[in-house]
Amino acid sequence: VAEPNDPVASPQAESAGDAEPLYGLTTGVARATREALTAGDVTRVRRLVRPLHYSDQADLIERFNPAMRRAYIEIMRGRLDPEVLTELDESVREEVVEQLGAEETAAAVSELDTDDAVHVLEDLDQDVQQQVLDALSAEDRALVEENLGYPEDSAGRLMQRELVAIPAFWTVGETIDHMRESKDLPDDFYDIVVVDPRHQPVGTIPLNKILRTRRPVRVRHIMAGQMYTIPAATDQEEVARLFRQQDLVSAPVIDESGRLVGIITVDDVVDVIDEEAEEDLMRLAGVGETDVYHAMLDTARSRFSWLAVNLVTAIMASIVIGLFEGTIKEIVALAILMPIVASMGGNAGTQTLTVAVRALAMRELSRQNAWRFVFKEFFVGGINGILFAVLAGFCAGFWFQSIAIGGVIAAAMVVNLVVAGLSGTLIPLGLERMGVDPAIASSVFLTTVTDVIGFLAFLGLATLFLL
Amino acid sequence: VAEPNDPVASPQAESAGDAEPLYGLTTGVARATREALTAGDVTRVRRLVRPLHYSDQADLIERFNPAMRRAYIEIMRGRLDPEVLTELDESVREEVVEQLGAEETAAAVSELDTDDAVHVLEDLDQDVQQQVLDALSAEDRALVEENLGYPEDSAGRLMQRELVAIPAFWTVGETIDHMRESKDLPDDFYDIVVVDPRHQPVGTIPLNKILRTRRPVRVRHIMAGQMYTIPAATDQEEVARLFRQQDLVSAPVIDESGRLVGIITVDDVVDVIDEEAEEDLMRLAGVGETDVYHAMLDTARSRFSWLAVNLVTAIMASIVIGLFEGTIKEIVALAILMPIVASMGGNAGTQTLTVAVRALAMRELSRQNAWRFVFKEFFVGGINGILFAVLAGFCAGFWFQSIAIGGVIAAAMVVNLVVAGLSGTLIPLGLERMGVDPAIASSVFLTTVTDVIGFLAFLGLATLFLL
Repeated sequence: VAEPNDPVASPQAESAGDAEPLYGLTTGVARATREALTAGDVTRVRRLVRPLHYSDQADLIERFNPAMRRAYIEIMRGRLDPEVLTELDESVREEVVEQLGAEETAAAVSELDTDDAVHVLEDLDQDVQQQVLDALSAEDRALVEENLGYPEDSAGRLMQRELVAIPAFWTVGETIDHMRESKDLPDDFYDIVVVDPRHQPVGTIPLNKILRTRRPVRVRHIMAGQMYTIPAATDQEEVARLFRQQDLVSAPVIDESGRLVGIITVDDVVDVIDEEAEEDLMRLAGVGETDVYHAMLDTARSRFSWLAVNLVTAIMASIVIGLFEGTIKEIVALAILMPIVASMGGNAGTQTLTVAVRALAMRELSRQNAWRFVFKEFFVGGINGILFAVLAGFCAGFWFQSIAIGGVIAAAMVVNLVVAGLSGTLIPLGLERMGVDPAIASSVFLTTVTDVIGFLAFLGLATLFLL
Repeated sequence: VAEPNDPVASPQAESAGDAEPLYGLTTGVARATREALTAGDVTRVRRLVRPLHYSDQADLIERFNPAMRRAYIEIMRGRLDPEVLTELDESVREEVVEQLGAEETAAAVSELDTDDAVHVLEDLDQDVQQQVLDALSAEDRALVEENLGYPEDSAGRLMQRELVAIPAFWTVGETIDHMRESKDLPDDFYDIVVVDPRHQPVGTIPLNKILRTRRPVRVRHIMAGQMYTIPAATDQEEVARLFRQQDLVSAPVIDESGRLVGIITVDDVVDVIDEEAEEDLMRLAGVGETDVYHAMLDTARSRFSWLAVNLVTAIMASIVIGLFEGTIKEIVALAILMPIVASMGGNAGTQTLTVAVRALAMRELSRQNAWRFVFKEFFVGGINGILFAVLAGFCAGFWFQSIAIGGVIAAAMVVNLVVAGLSGTLIPLGLERMGVDPAIASSVFLTTVTDVIGFLAFLGLATLFLL
């Protein structure tokens, strides 16, 4: 419970000031906690942190340096809100779990819903994970291990086992009485699942429908029979699309025999949507994962491989330039101008590529409209190619006082922007068809193509017409 | 209601096959509808479309070509699910609304919740919007115009006015009876807002809590008093962060005097999260907005300005090369190798930049940890700079049989990767501090820096040591 007299403790005080954000950790609380930690004032640390939301506590822990983090966890030992573990960044969570030890982590995990427990456990090192699992009660362990048995990033990992399932012949009154008496309900739920005697879902009912309906009505008559049940092996990206498309807040998950095994709620899906958007963004830029909290050497290593691929493609482009060594020796202006053609192609291609990758991820682009999209990008590349041919041709011709050089760069520009438009669409579409995530490798291929074609067209045309 | 005997009509049939997606428009339905449209079989078109979810109907309309789209809307006139309008892409929606006319659009809009009505209306041309508003009932118009009065992308635009607000002295039983009797409840809701006599929110109650509590209990005793109320002028990005951070499904919105004016639900927030993620991705690539459904000329125009900026920066890089014309004339190998240094710098910088932009958007990066982040990227740039200096130096030295050339490219590589790491962090941090969206202009600045420094370091060192 908040202490309304303490200005740092009340979330409402935060939304009052314009400068402070609507929610979350204020600079004031973060600083005060850090000072109290440094001063070793255990009581003040605990008092400052108590009113914070678990997400904010997790943010606080992430922002500490390692020494402070250890001191903080020691102070909070036995009092840490278990939900904090679910909100921590993966690398920080690993440290905290190791410091807490298997027994205390297991005690925290057992208070969480299965989906959150799995989320905490799935990224831990194999042996740490096993230790925590061993420390769980047999019942909790069975549920968590079952979820962990589903593939990574599948609906089975996302679902919570705690749910409300009732038979179709119950009345609204019986359902309400059941909920009033049951001690074993999930923390939050938004829909009730109606099941048949084989425990297969036959419908769902939003809670507001239960509340609006009179007690004697049978649930069979108010349930939505046209619902979406999610097989547990479904990829989480597919689950996110379903929730987004159908504006769902929760959906039942079934096993291979069609039996109800869990339920996925929208808060987990929001995390998935963030994760997938971030993944696309990072993959396009050649970064493995967001690594704000990663150690320096890990970060350097994770970026090395992409840069290595880029070195190879850059050398390929250089080999193409090398073919025209003689031409460049004759006309040095070509060496000065050639990066313009390559750079414009790379940028135009990246524009197209990004639209294509996002459209594929959002299912706006499919086999049915692929050719229309490719044609459009071809056309857009052509229009902009002609416009920039005129601009670049004029600049270069004026600079080097040569109509011929202007003509050559103009022609190369049209060629490269059209090629950029085509590669920006065909490369991701091709990767998608081959079953590769189009975000992951598209940009390397693209810049290789636009560099090689850019240099080849410009220097090739120059060799033909200027020598 | 679905017709279970028609395999194309049942959503459950879709999730059965492995090849078909879990949800959404199947190729079968899309093709069948197109054939029926071409054949002019009005009854079949309507029968095929009836069981589809409104999102799928919107997808179908988007995928038609313009002529088919017009024919389809004609056939569905007077029968179109109003929700379909909310799901259409902006440019397609504009066409459909124009075809339907103000009267029919107003009839559809009046059936929607305020947030959806505003969503349909806000992007329309001013005069079309006014026509539709004029055709609404006075009551609907007042509510919609009030929401439209809030700034674009604010909480006031996202909120729905339809909500359940009750006084704190009511009992659970009275609340349930109220909901059973009221005809004017919103379509979907997940929380009830408790208000004081001045209509200021004092707490919220999730529906499941109402259902679990016995009738005589007063709502004051079960409400969560520590809630987040959102001022109507709050930016939608901030709203999305709040929902994500606190795992909310709905939150009350207040006006300037603190009175309850609406409620935001998680389905709208999911759309915002998608929109914001897409915006960052597109802005980093220099694309105005996703334009899969845009007309060709609009697309070409929207990409032109970014490419024009890139042309200017490419010319700047060329001017730098031009400074070393004499050196290149002496040693043509430099012209062949110079794109490697620039390209590696551009890629390393983009990696850092993308991590920084995302971290800023997700509030993982703030003034408090900015310097640690900058230092880390400086260090990562240094490590990878040294590694790639060795690799590139070895390749270049071997290729041109010159240890000196290898040494020069190695030194330039270290310089450029360190500069890339620094610019990849400092540019977005600087833009953020100046109040500019760091996604929007970062990449131009970055590639300008890495190109200029790359060419300058490589050609400058070559001029010093090789001539």
